[in-house]
Amino acid sequence: MKNIIIASTSTVHGLGYLEYLLDELEVFFKDIKSLVFIPYARPGGMSHDDYTNNARKAFEKIGIEVKGIHEFDNPIEGINQAEGIFVGGGNTFVLTYQIYKNNLITPLQNAVKNGTPYLGTSAGSNICGLTIKTTNDMPIVYPPSFKALGFVPFNINPHYLDPDPKSKHMGETRETRINEFHHYNTPPVIGLREGSWLHVKGDSIILKGTLDARIFEFGNAPYELAPGSELNGLK
Amino acid sequence: MKNIIIASTSTVHGLGYLEYLLDELEVFFKDIKSLVFIPYARPGGMSHDDYTNNARKAFEKIGIEVKGIHEFDNPIEGINQAEGIFVGGGNTFVLTYQIYKNNLITPLQNAVKNGTPYLGTSAGSNICGLTIKTTNDMPIVYPPSFKALGFVPFNINPHYLDPDPKSKHMGETRETRINEFHHYNTPPVIGLREGSWLHVKGDSIILKGTLDARIFEFGNAPYELAPGSELNGLK
Repeated sequence: MKNIIIASTSTVHGLGYLEYLLDELEVFFKDIKSLVFIPYARPGGMSHDDYTNNARKAFEKIGIEVKGIHEFDNPIEGINQAEGIFVGGGNTFVLTYQIYKNNLITPLQNAVKNGTPYLGTSAGSNICGLTIKTTNDMPIVYPPSFKALGFVPFNINPHYLDPDPKSKHMGETRETRINEFHHYNTPPVIGLREGSWLHVKGDSIILKGTLDARIFEFGNAPYELAPGSELNGLK
Repeated sequence: MKNIIIASTSTVHGLGYLEYLLDELEVFFKDIKSLVFIPYARPGGMSHDDYTNNARKAFEKIGIEVKGIHEFDNPIEGINQAEGIFVGGGNTFVLTYQIYKNNLITPLQNAVKNGTPYLGTSAGSNICGLTIKTTNDMPIVYPPSFKALGFVPFNINPHYLDPDPKSKHMGETRETRINEFHHYNTPPVIGLREGSWLHVKGDSIILKGTLDARIFEFGNAPYELAPGSELNGLK
């Protein structure tokens, strides 16, 4: 049975890494003692070791051991043996490129199908959708495909940002960008504000946290969804 | 001799389409009576006809006739016959996809090499760089490559936006994103603020407008460059 947390961000303003989510993670990962961390998205280009150490320090607080996927001779084996999986944020294009390069798409899909708990934050959440076509990131590397893991039948927009009515900048708002996505693609998009997450458990997909999410469906006006709502009808 | 305007935006806050640039364009296009407009980037998904009409209305004011590339049976012929070329803004991924699909990379490069004046705004400026890897746009379609026209030996970041020191949003600033680009790529990036443009004439590349540009070079701290500066040493 699928068991996934898809979080908008790893860090909310004013708190430490994963701090806002730690109580939830303690319950989510209660049956495991260790997890495999995928640091491929490398925020700010930090090393895989340094990034894994950040995750290690956060998970120490809830008694979970962290091993980086890059520490395995064979990353596929790393996923196959993992008790739990955490894919951290950074650049979604870099992450996607590395996941394809290491042939991890199918192993990740199989692990999640078999019930291995999966936590994604930011870029690690983007890849839970059908494609990475609603990432906010800069396309600094060219991945072999924009197809993602498809754990949910829609796309994710993490760090969802409301338009600033005072802005004089002529760049597109997030809402405009997602509407443009729907000129070329039909799947729904969920704009997850920072501090929100989805908990996928089997066939259920619940919006968690204290904030509404913004839902964009092809051919419909966008609308707000309250925390606690079930999203499994969205497709 | 190359003759190119690479503009950050088509429109600055409070003015009409191309209005801030019209005096410059009158001089830039003084030797031609018509140009071919490439509406492929389709901002907001508007039709090629509607977008071309917008460009037509702006260029009417300076006595230049506009024909959309989509009005030609053979778009390659359209480029080959063009007196001038204008590539409008919108989504850089959509634009790049369409340019590859219509086999226009080489025709555009040849036209510019042969002296056909080229105006790009926003997405139409992004593609003047080496790659589209420093676009701000959402990757709503998958182009066959991120390689672009390479009219200048660096990358462009249009709509360059300074960090907001008051922001509580955890998404990356523009500067952070461009620094991440330099973890995987070495070409310089020029952050063009709205209202700025580059004028490329032969071997000269001058920053125009009233604002500084922000220059990002691999391995160096970013720095500001004043209007009127020559950028042909940047590579």
